[in-house]
Amino acid sequence: MENYQDMLHYYDPNYKPKDSDIVCLYRFETEDGVSFGEGAEQIAAESSIGTWTKISTMKENIAQTLKPRIIELNEDKHTAKIAYPIELFEVDNMSGILSSICGNILGMKILKNLRVCDIKFPKEVVTAFPGPEHGIQGVRDLTGIYDRPFTGTIIKPKVGLTSDQHAEVAYQAWYGIDGQGLDIVKDDENLTSQTFNPFDKRMELTFEQKNRVEAETGTKKMYLANITHSNFDEMMRRSDVIKNAGGKVCMLDVVTLGFNAVESYRRKNTGQIIHAHRAMHGAITREPGFSISMLVLAKVYRMLGVDLLHTGTAGAGKMEGSANDTLILVDALEKDSIKGNDADETLDQEWYGMKPVIAVASGGLQPAKIPEVVKVMGNDIVCQMGGGCHGHQDGTAGGAQAIYQAVEASVKGIPVEEYAKDHPALQKAIDKWGV
Amino acid sequence: MENYQDMLHYYDPNYKPKDSDIVCLYRFETEDGVSFGEGAEQIAAESSIGTWTKISTMKENIAQTLKPRIIELNEDKHTAKIAYPIELFEVDNMSGILSSICGNILGMKILKNLRVCDIKFPKEVVTAFPGPEHGIQGVRDLTGIYDRPFTGTIIKPKVGLTSDQHAEVAYQAWYGIDGQGLDIVKDDENLTSQTFNPFDKRMELTFEQKNRVEAETGTKKMYLANITHSNFDEMMRRSDVIKNAGGKVCMLDVVTLGFNAVESYRRKNTGQIIHAHRAMHGAITREPGFSISMLVLAKVYRMLGVDLLHTGTAGAGKMEGSANDTLILVDALEKDSIKGNDADETLDQEWYGMKPVIAVASGGLQPAKIPEVVKVMGNDIVCQMGGGCHGHQDGTAGGAQAIYQAVEASVKGIPVEEYAKDHPALQKAIDKWGV
Repeated sequence: MENYQDMLHYYDPNYKPKDSDIVCLYRFETEDGVSFGEGAEQIAAESSIGTWTKISTMKENIAQTLKPRIIELNEDKHTAKIAYPIELFEVDNMSGILSSICGNILGMKILKNLRVCDIKFPKEVVTAFPGPEHGIQGVRDLTGIYDRPFTGTIIKPKVGLTSDQHAEVAYQAWYGIDGQGLDIVKDDENLTSQTFNPFDKRMELTFEQKNRVEAETGTKKMYLANITHSNFDEMMRRSDVIKNAGGKVCMLDVVTLGFNAVESYRRKNTGQIIHAHRAMHGAITREPGFSISMLVLAKVYRMLGVDLLHTGTAGAGKMEGSANDTLILVDALEKDSIKGNDADETLDQEWYGMKPVIAVASGGLQPAKIPEVVKVMGNDIVCQMGGGCHGHQDGTAGGAQAIYQAVEASVKGIPVEEYAKDHPALQKAIDKWGV
Repeated sequence: MENYQDMLHYYDPNYKPKDSDIVCLYRFETEDGVSFGEGAEQIAAESSIGTWTKISTMKENIAQTLKPRIIELNEDKHTAKIAYPIELFEVDNMSGILSSICGNILGMKILKNLRVCDIKFPKEVVTAFPGPEHGIQGVRDLTGIYDRPFTGTIIKPKVGLTSDQHAEVAYQAWYGIDGQGLDIVKDDENLTSQTFNPFDKRMELTFEQKNRVEAETGTKKMYLANITHSNFDEMMRRSDVIKNAGGKVCMLDVVTLGFNAVESYRRKNTGQIIHAHRAMHGAITREPGFSISMLVLAKVYRMLGVDLLHTGTAGAGKMEGSANDTLILVDALEKDSIKGNDADETLDQEWYGMKPVIAVASGGLQPAKIPEVVKVMGNDIVCQMGGGCHGHQDGTAGGAQAIYQAVEASVKGIPVEEYAKDHPALQKAIDKWGV
């Protein structure tokens, strides 16, 4: 039976990818007895038009027009680049695209430690998605803050405060001491609508405090309230509660919600800024083992339309991720044109004018680390710390002031130890947590 | 500053979990210099009320009423069990629950290879979710098939056929030879709505063939059409197209859609049977490395309300997963009461009458493997094969007949080699793929 399967050898190092191809960079090993090249062939097959055995229904035109090409095989680095014709995909269906090129292949028995390192999305895909509605400029315009990173805290303890207590801590964080406070207060990812702190009550009381502190200080504050819910209708209801209270931002836990919820929320065009927390991403992104890089997820979330995204702290906090890991993410979120390189396992990526996303440094940060974080990540970030605010000797307000002062030091280019000499809140933070 | 943090030691082996506690079984290692016990303390803290430093806002009642307990530490097996008070959670918000107990902890620097092995969900959580609308019995009643596993195929090649060709292959699979064909035809996960085979056209033509074959054979067939789309509104539109064409089933790619889309679709109460494909689960579930077991995902999807779920092939196919791995999943999907055991890293689980889910064996299967699969997974499954149908010497129809005959052999308890002697389609399958 001639069924054109013999044409289906995917390795073609002379193939020059079309601009419209989706290009994937995979890293993997193979089980004993399976060559590296065969592993790459199987990845190409399972993620496109092939399966594990020859089939009668294969057609010549399919094999010719839709087959992907393995354009690079590097057995030393265990990497392969595969170029997929755009015709294989529904360009505006991210779930469908990921099911193909990050899907079944991660379950294949013959592969070990497959990692999807990067995906180059072509113009056809990038421009099929909305991207951020506000982006960096939108959030700067909303707050009137242009010359420094944003500052923020997560209300701690993560859960357990009553709505009253929550709102009071929020006020302390925003106001700080002598009005030297934070721009942003964020719900923890563990906080949704528990009996001790129901969502609607929390919104009412916390937005009251936000209005109060804005009146007192003449500055704009942001409340990143967590609307994450596994039922979309309830998530939308909570979004409306925030909007009706005058809130401009909604926090989505984008991994535990899923890609569909993020895009669907964005496409509702509520006008809300989308703050993306990424709890559970470690199960997908973290090595060793079968994984998809956080870079891929960050690119996807930019396309789906988040305005802010947690990226890690450039090595300065409690979460994994080196300075270079974080920088790769910041570039993917902020730049319009990216040049990939083999050492970082990254590919070129053009963004065609899609708005940039604000990177959020969060997770075990403390005030004195801010200059280090800003040095790596730049100014267009949120420096966000929970324990590193509420753990201050003078409580939340003291912590907020210490963060405020650390940002001042960073902007002025003065080492924090020196700046702390006549800024006691910062000095206390250094006394507690070092530099 | 007294802030009750010194009370926050979570290890309490004498604590007897309440029925309402959520209990998690974690496996992990710690980075050098961090003891195993300290690792467990940090997991308990980050997943509930703690953070990395002492904070001023902690209250006595929070520390007393909301703290989780580490009830078991097994350093040899690298496992810890943690019991969380139900008050920590919003019981009907799966995304929120997972953000807490499968969230940030997977990104913590001090941990290595953290795996969420199992979660015991209490009655308060289980009954807060809809579960399957149809379940095993509903699908049996719809089809009138009671005494054997269901049979199915995925149209292959995965993508590339025109809508006409797709519908024709579907007919061949359903009809087989002499009406000895399959119950189910499923879209591949790579197939959504591509230019060569747009969704609406495919539905029109494939349901025509379904009606035709039902009329010819007097049997009920199912078409598992893939409505996966990253925009919920478009997914609902496709669901309606199917419903209007008389289709009773919709396929969702549950991982690339996300938890929210699955629950939200279920709660729309469309009446459609939900078939759950799981492309990309390997990035989350597969070891080594940071992961959440497929068992946890399977339990979650049962609660969210899928009627069928891919579980692997009990070791008989191209995908990872041993017979025991698959059996654990089948039990979690089908039983009402499960007894956990340490060897399998499983916990007890009650289902409070929630309907059981049909396990789908799929991925590199071929006809002669059916008895082996049924022996492990039982009768209430779908035996689904793509290449193992369309790769048959007599094409799709021959493959469908071979599968039909293999199921007959399985039901009659006759070895396939023997049954094949007077069943030529099955014999050809054995000639090609062995036993």
